[in-house]
Amino acid sequence: MATAVAVSNGGAKGPAATTRVMSVYSEVQTSRLNHNLPLPSVLRAPFALLDGPPSSAAGNPDEIAKLFPHLFGQPSAKLVPATDTASSAASSGTLKVGVVLSGGQAPGGHNVISGIFDYLQEKAKGSTIYGFKGGPAGIMKCKYVELTPEFVYPFRNQGGFDMICSGRDKIETPQQFKEAEDTAAKLDLDGLVVIGGDDSNTNACLLAEYFRSKNMKTRVIGCPKTIDGDLKCKEVPASFGFDTACKIYSEMIGNVMVDARSTGKYYHFVRLMGRAASHITLECALQTHPNIAVIGEEVAAKKQTLKNVTDYITDIICKRAELGYNYGVILIPEGLIDFIPEVQTLIAELNEILAHDVVDEAGVWKQKLQPQCQQLFEFLPQAIQEQLLLERDPHGNVQVAKIETEKMLISMVETELEKRKAEGKYAGHFKGQSHFFGYEGRCGMPTNFDSNYCYALGYAAGALLHCGKTGLISSVGNLCAPVEEWTVGGTALTSLMDVERRHGKFKPVIKKAMVELDGAPFKKFASMRDEWAIKNRYISPGPIQFMGPGANDVNHTLLLELGVVQA
Amino acid sequence: MATAVAVSNGGAKGPAATTRVMSVYSEVQTSRLNHNLPLPSVLRAPFALLDGPPSSAAGNPDEIAKLFPHLFGQPSAKLVPATDTASSAASSGTLKVGVVLSGGQAPGGHNVISGIFDYLQEKAKGSTIYGFKGGPAGIMKCKYVELTPEFVYPFRNQGGFDMICSGRDKIETPQQFKEAEDTAAKLDLDGLVVIGGDDSNTNACLLAEYFRSKNMKTRVIGCPKTIDGDLKCKEVPASFGFDTACKIYSEMIGNVMVDARSTGKYYHFVRLMGRAASHITLECALQTHPNIAVIGEEVAAKKQTLKNVTDYITDIICKRAELGYNYGVILIPEGLIDFIPEVQTLIAELNEILAHDVVDEAGVWKQKLQPQCQQLFEFLPQAIQEQLLLERDPHGNVQVAKIETEKMLISMVETELEKRKAEGKYAGHFKGQSHFFGYEGRCGMPTNFDSNYCYALGYAAGALLHCGKTGLISSVGNLCAPVEEWTVGGTALTSLMDVERRHGKFKPVIKKAMVELDGAPFKKFASMRDEWAIKNRYISPGPIQFMGPGANDVNHTLLLELGVVQA
Repeated sequence: MATAVAVSNGGAKGPAATTRVMSVYSEVQTSRLNHNLPLPSVLRAPFALLDGPPSSAAGNPDEIAKLFPHLFGQPSAKLVPATDTASSAASSGTLKVGVVLSGGQAPGGHNVISGIFDYLQEKAKGSTIYGFKGGPAGIMKCKYVELTPEFVYPFRNQGGFDMICSGRDKIETPQQFKEAEDTAAKLDLDGLVVIGGDDSNTNACLLAEYFRSKNMKTRVIGCPKTIDGDLKCKEVPASFGFDTACKIYSEMIGNVMVDARSTGKYYHFVRLMGRAASHITLECALQTHPNIAVIGEEVAAKKQTLKNVTDYITDIICKRAELGYNYGVILIPEGLIDFIPEVQTLIAELNEILAHDVVDEAGVWKQKLQPQCQQLFEFLPQAIQEQLLLERDPHGNVQVAKIETEKMLISMVETELEKRKAEGKYAGHFKGQSHFFGYEGRCGMPTNFDSNYCYALGYAAGALLHCGKTGLISSVGNLCAPVEEWTVGGTALTSLMDVERRHGKFKPVIKKAMVELDGAPFKKFASMRDEWAIKNRYISPGPIQFMGPGANDVNHTLLLELGVVQA
Repeated sequence: MATAVAVSNGGAKGPAATTRVMSVYSEVQTSRLNHNLPLPSVLRAPFALLDGPPSSAAGNPDEIAKLFPHLFGQPSAKLVPATDTASSAASSGTLKVGVVLSGGQAPGGHNVISGIFDYLQEKAKGSTIYGFKGGPAGIMKCKYVELTPEFVYPFRNQGGFDMICSGRDKIETPQQFKEAEDTAAKLDLDGLVVIGGDDSNTNACLLAEYFRSKNMKTRVIGCPKTIDGDLKCKEVPASFGFDTACKIYSEMIGNVMVDARSTGKYYHFVRLMGRAASHITLECALQTHPNIAVIGEEVAAKKQTLKNVTDYITDIICKRAELGYNYGVILIPEGLIDFIPEVQTLIAELNEILAHDVVDEAGVWKQKLQPQCQQLFEFLPQAIQEQLLLERDPHGNVQVAKIETEKMLISMVETELEKRKAEGKYAGHFKGQSHFFGYEGRCGMPTNFDSNYCYALGYAAGALLHCGKTGLISSVGNLCAPVEEWTVGGTALTSLMDVERRHGKFKPVIKKAMVELDGAPFKKFASMRDEWAIKNRYISPGPIQFMGPGANDVNHTLLLELGVVQA
């Protein structure tokens, strides 16, 4: 049934013009397409919504109350089986709902949309659902496509965001809020689901507040998306996509480990996506047991320098050489150098100098650097020096994310090892191989976990809208239990917020969840890493399976954070 | 049963000292460990060996006859169900057999060894099998480990070569042949199985000839290994590891394609391992349908320059921009620049100049290049120029394999696009992302195909030795049929050989099988690539499955070459 059906999302030119032609689906794609998803049992039967107590904020509740006068304090809610005493229930009417994908891709986004779609089809028959194209810009420009069963079908359980595409625009200015208002009015929207990360969910809450302040009927529900794993809290135990991305990276890391052990002559330095937070690196470490995994948050907490990190790696390489191991695998979070204070200072100084001065070949410009920064700059490998000077973003700033930290560390470790060799302290041989695992993981086919989780998130978002809720983030819990036992509800977005002062004004933010050094995942890692460093305890998770052994494994971070496994 | 058993291969220091600790096996690893493998039906029942007609050579039979006086002309053989009329059968005695892994890793190597091991356990009970450690050097230095059921078990269906490790040494000099002879005599070897690529199988044949010339009982059987896919012929339709490596790379390519389509703003340039031949790139293209796949053999046949390749890519990018697509995926074989005559000339000239002259900063040295080479050198991006000048192998030669062709092409395409933009011929936007997929694929868990194929290859090698054969390469055919129907035999290694003149002497070689431009896989690709270039026909194969849909898929190259699917 899945062959030769071409589905295009509107045929428009530009980034949102994509096509899925099912005649060219692989066998695995087709089988996933037709894979039926389980739902939490509370969603399978008539349910009611039970409000909790009034909520507060993650910090500075007075400021949050000022920023969200209509929403602050509203309760979170959970779904319970319908009984006569339940506090509220879904309306019987049909809905007009919009959905938007915001920010970077994460496996499972399509399933959130299918979840909303199926909810409306099954519980609010006759409803309409619009997909805004190319992210929040689609809302502002009123670019959308009406979702139909035929349109949604080819994306079920498939990776990517290409059904309606995504974008990084934000709805920020009064003009932009007005545009969103116009679109909501024009489409007569009862609700909008924003699928995004911390910023996008903050934006969703501002939009909910705005619509409420205008007495509009349009309600807004958020969904927690990001492979980086930095959007989570007690009520929202995970962001979707993290599970799949980590398992894809871990498959590759496991393969590289076996390669390292087989040839016995390479140190593989693997940089992993994940932005500022090191959740992905930590999870991949727990899945694969590398010889070294650098956790950015620990580097920051210990106020380490680049030299400290280099020495830490070099020490382990020397110890391993004594044991006869001249190979290994080292994981490095993408955001590492963001965590090193001296590097931040250097970059700030460079941005300042490069904005005003000429970089002369003779290097006179370097004298404008503070002595410590100058020293650090000279310590960096030449290729990195050049990268810092040459690759700039449109604002002229150094592009930190573009720095190939893994190559930088290889070069610095090499230099340090040569020094030690000259001093007679190291007699091994060292060859570094660099890797960056990133784009391979953002659009993989979602694991069973992410497929189920996203479907439940979407289904729950539909239910929350149907019950008249706004300003909540779809919240599915008890995630280490079988799907039937998962809890479902919505958490007041304002309760997750704090403020940050920017340009003299308070801005609401959902704080990024960083790796906690007293959290169970890090403690587990810390308790084992010395053994991993010296003994080879490599695990090869293998390719993600959809059937059979391992197919329903939950990631270690979640198991540890939910206390299902002890640290 | 698979937990907490540590298996070390001897505990020696150095590259061959590895350990697998099964208490840290993943669920998928454990399930593969206990996965029972099917055997071709001819191997499951009593069999006999049927000799074919006398063989010749792939080229220059007279020279091959001189180089292999004892082996030349010997028949290939195939296994048939035992009957009274069959020509020869396995002896009833026990055997002492050595096995060695030679060259780069390929998924399935451990299964070849398990195959030999199980054959001896089941059909020649009481036999002994030694694993030579660290490749051919292990034979010369008589470094080995005796394989036991407990030793072999943790490696069943697992990736890597770490059971006994591999090495790139060759047995070449009279002294080295003598060392191999001493080892064979010391261990009283009846047979030796050499698992390797074209060079290693040539070496295996030379060793078989040598042992025969010395009237030794030690027989030598080869097995076709390499992910590169360049060791194959009618009798040996595939080298093992190719299937798994291509499927791993294709999973990643498929993910990157979905990412490209979702963001709509990146051109991903993916360089793929595979040495000189472009088989891997071609197979990955058939699995995933990229917008462009450059096939080195075609570039060579058409005598294209780097500028031609750049223009070909740029033309397609411009056409796609007109259609509104500013993204895409481009596959590039690792060996590409080896195929471009002008690059080879440049590298030869550089090697000559760098060996004798100083590279002055002002660039006066460049005047020593021929005008055409100078022009090409100036055409190259600066980073590549530096790489050519700085990164040298121990012999002082430019390291072609280290050149990041994907980055080079991004840079050259970028320059060309800027030119066209200035001329008003291109109005799109271009952002290149580079990838190199290599080490991730060499040691993945073997697919069902490679698991079964390798096990049959090993089992057959045991049978051939048991029947007294030498100088054959284990040959398993009919590979697109169910395993039960696979054919089993041995092909005379001399029949695959030709000679090459090196330093005025004839050297025997098994010619590398390159992509044939009139072969079915390339023709299939060529018939579809124009459509893939402009329309997006991306396929996402997804992760390798061991159960369920897709788990037993055979790769496209094999299906097309065996005529199971039409080009």
